[in-house]
Amino acid sequence: MDAWNNFTKYLFQDEHLGLTIDFSKIGFDDAFFQKMRGKIEGAYKEMAALEAGAIANIDEHRMVGHYWLRNPSIAPTPEIEAEIRDAISKVVKFAESVHMGDIRGQMSNFKNVLFVGIGGSALGPQLACHSLAGDDKLNCFFIDNTDPDGMNFVLKRLDGELDQTLVVVTSKSGSTPEPRNAMMAVRAAYENANFIFARHAVAITKAGSLLDECAKKEGWLARFPMWDWVGGRTSICSVVGLLPMALQGHSVKKFLDGARDIDTLTRQINDKNPAMLMALAWYLAGNGVGSRDMVVIPYKDRLCDLSKYLQQLIMESLGKEKDRNGNIVNQGLTVYGNKGSTDQHSFIQQLRDGLQNFFITIVTVLRSDVQQTVEVDDLNMTPGDYLNGFAIGTMQALAERHVPIIHLTINKFSEYELGVLIGLYERAVGFYASMLNINAYHQPGVEAGKKAAFEVLKLQKKMLNFLQSHKGQKFSVIDICQSMLYSGEPSLIFKLLEFLSANGHIVKSIERGDCIYGVM
Amino acid sequence: MDAWNNFTKYLFQDEHLGLTIDFSKIGFDDAFFQKMRGKIEGAYKEMAALEAGAIANIDEHRMVGHYWLRNPSIAPTPEIEAEIRDAISKVVKFAESVHMGDIRGQMSNFKNVLFVGIGGSALGPQLACHSLAGDDKLNCFFIDNTDPDGMNFVLKRLDGELDQTLVVVTSKSGSTPEPRNAMMAVRAAYENANFIFARHAVAITKAGSLLDECAKKEGWLARFPMWDWVGGRTSICSVVGLLPMALQGHSVKKFLDGARDIDTLTRQINDKNPAMLMALAWYLAGNGVGSRDMVVIPYKDRLCDLSKYLQQLIMESLGKEKDRNGNIVNQGLTVYGNKGSTDQHSFIQQLRDGLQNFFITIVTVLRSDVQQTVEVDDLNMTPGDYLNGFAIGTMQALAERHVPIIHLTINKFSEYELGVLIGLYERAVGFYASMLNINAYHQPGVEAGKKAAFEVLKLQKKMLNFLQSHKGQKFSVIDICQSMLYSGEPSLIFKLLEFLSANGHIVKSIERGDCIYGVM
Repeated sequence: MDAWNNFTKYLFQDEHLGLTIDFSKIGFDDAFFQKMRGKIEGAYKEMAALEAGAIANIDEHRMVGHYWLRNPSIAPTPEIEAEIRDAISKVVKFAESVHMGDIRGQMSNFKNVLFVGIGGSALGPQLACHSLAGDDKLNCFFIDNTDPDGMNFVLKRLDGELDQTLVVVTSKSGSTPEPRNAMMAVRAAYENANFIFARHAVAITKAGSLLDECAKKEGWLARFPMWDWVGGRTSICSVVGLLPMALQGHSVKKFLDGARDIDTLTRQINDKNPAMLMALAWYLAGNGVGSRDMVVIPYKDRLCDLSKYLQQLIMESLGKEKDRNGNIVNQGLTVYGNKGSTDQHSFIQQLRDGLQNFFITIVTVLRSDVQQTVEVDDLNMTPGDYLNGFAIGTMQALAERHVPIIHLTINKFSEYELGVLIGLYERAVGFYASMLNINAYHQPGVEAGKKAAFEVLKLQKKMLNFLQSHKGQKFSVIDICQSMLYSGEPSLIFKLLEFLSANGHIVKSIERGDCIYGVM
Repeated sequence: MDAWNNFTKYLFQDEHLGLTIDFSKIGFDDAFFQKMRGKIEGAYKEMAALEAGAIANIDEHRMVGHYWLRNPSIAPTPEIEAEIRDAISKVVKFAESVHMGDIRGQMSNFKNVLFVGIGGSALGPQLACHSLAGDDKLNCFFIDNTDPDGMNFVLKRLDGELDQTLVVVTSKSGSTPEPRNAMMAVRAAYENANFIFARHAVAITKAGSLLDECAKKEGWLARFPMWDWVGGRTSICSVVGLLPMALQGHSVKKFLDGARDIDTLTRQINDKNPAMLMALAWYLAGNGVGSRDMVVIPYKDRLCDLSKYLQQLIMESLGKEKDRNGNIVNQGLTVYGNKGSTDQHSFIQQLRDGLQNFFITIVTVLRSDVQQTVEVDDLNMTPGDYLNGFAIGTMQALAERHVPIIHLTINKFSEYELGVLIGLYERAVGFYASMLNINAYHQPGVEAGKKAAFEVLKLQKKMLNFLQSHKGQKFSVIDICQSMLYSGEPSLIFKLLEFLSANGHIVKSIERGDCIYGVM
């Protein structure tokens, strides 16, 4: 009885949501809750303010409104409420028109959809499309990078079917280089095939952005809004995630219902609030400083993207240099994982026997939802029994080593449960960030990387100009640094020279053991 | 000049291999090499013995022969040499016969190939197929799990094309549950469609295994060997990886050449041995105990599986409880990552600003190999310039924070370079394991997980039998524990009851706030 009482003490179970979370292997005790009481109260208070429209993203002076997306009636102004409702109904209508063939290419109905976007504008749509995949209405393609080879790979698969392909370009500012570059490459493919790009293109962007202006001017098929008060990593409940779902024939209503229902539940202040328990589990397991990695393993093929999605949601939200008072804290929580039982034949060896630097979240789905199945052994077990057996067996094996474990179970998986999962993790992240006193809603490091990249490109251009203006001459790395009065790291010059020569822009040769470069 | 000298001091560059590795941001100095001298010498010595046929996998009393696969002339016996050569030529011939239509389904030529396997039998083929994808001769599908829903998803895509689908089942023992279950599900699909499974099936397995006997008896299209002296995570140079490559029309010769050439180079004892420098970099960055995670980010879409592949190779090899003297060491090295610049809009925020718990390997490919390209800005830059610029910019931004960085560059990517990468990492893992005095070639934790899972399945069966023999009665979790004299954790009983009821094997109801279960 004691073991059973200990187990049920921190068990969250909700029949309506179809969600069960077992925190019994995380190590909670009353003293911990006592210690955290102030942080817990603060987190609830801040969350309430955030939902009411406070400027929760202080550094960027923005509201944080992803909870409004699934319950527009709680939006802080009637204008925002109307905008959300309007966007949802526009999404549903647009998808219907595509399915009916009312919106179509120049000569054919759409059978493919190509999503161009990066970060949250790729991970949300990918999670939605892959996890819900089944009787999809359109074949689904993604370009989420500025790799020309990767773009070509996708465009080649669409060869001869461009007119049957709807292109959805998602970029809040319209000036993020990766989606802009990808969009330009896709546009070029349409033009080379003598199709009008605008007649196949949809923009999801901020009103008045460069992308919006371009789409308006050229008369794209549709323009959908992105809002300042929704961050990329929490945009799956906005048009960014809803349009992909609707186009694939999935119910955006059920998805939003799931997110709204978990919101309603996790808004309540009580001892079994699963989002709060999750945040507290992270805090306890990682000592409030992320001292253990979070391994996420769903035992379900279609949830394979979940860890990648959570990697962004959690690491981009929590991986911050400073707290909200400006103190250097270098916070974060590292997330990785793929799927079970596949991973048992891979890195779970280390989890079982090696470094004790992690805690784990195991996700299982009770109903296999497969009509026809085979019995595979003399116990009359099916593949689904094995999948569940491996999940539970792995937890047993890890528990022997006292690994902190969260076991999250959903009854079945569909649009509704995806919404539940999203809402649960979004709020847990918000609570956890409050406890750390950090801003979970900005991403200054991404800007720093972008800026550094532009400096590199400018240097590349400058160097190529220099070599072109000294045609026929050959320079070593050191020669170039000196001639260009460059005082940065010579290794950077070297790497750019190697890149330019490999791509035929300059010529590389070796003289007396030294690499020299020039334009011939 | 000093900065340049510091940079080139630990720079590895080989024009023939097309490989450059910059270790300048890893923090090497002479004192470290001095300190490591004994370990370095030991690692070289053990590697030489291993390649000569020593029982390097001591716990399982096995030789470790993956280096022979790309250079059969160094195999320890003429029999092994002949077996390798024979297998390679059989692979090439088989693939040719498939392409020519000499080997075909009952009524049609093969246009698809479905790979059934898990662990190394999935990750190697996936890395090969995805990284080399282009003008593939066959459409490629994988089942790498025992998820019935996942299997159905793949089989549905093959609906109506089963006769045009070649099925490759890879399992050394033939009794690993996941591939066995998947094979039985696939077989059932063929039988339901009135096709003879054997006429579409190929086995890659150990001679005399259950799978081998079955394939022999039923007359499958072909049987290929797996050997005791090749572990799953280093099997990509065996038939396991070569058959997928050959079937897709890629050159297994070039791939093996690449692996052989890097072997030749990394076998040499010198200060610029890149596999040794890599192992030393891991040691230095993680203090010999894996105290920092290894983040792996290739800036190339087609290398997206690399981190998942290395996750297995490295974590399953190094994640060990005991060293070779039986001391508890709980070693390991955590690996994760996806691809750049995509990840810059995701978890790189944390890498840039947050927790300092990692070191990073950035992989770039110099040649973009794309004919047609677009200029995307007023610097006349192309998407490929941006990709490279983001990689270098990110390194600059991380270096500012003193993150240890390995920058690995290959001139272009093809079969040869894939072989180079594989060989480089395999040897680095071997060297590193020697330095830690652990066996890199067994996986006892995987067995422990499997055993635990079987216990769970037996308990499930026993409990279902119990409930069936008490038809009409209803039991709470505690009732069942008591009636079955079960003394383990009641939570396990609870989880199995929930699973059985969700799938309709038993009935769950709630009476007086308590869940009760039974067979009605």
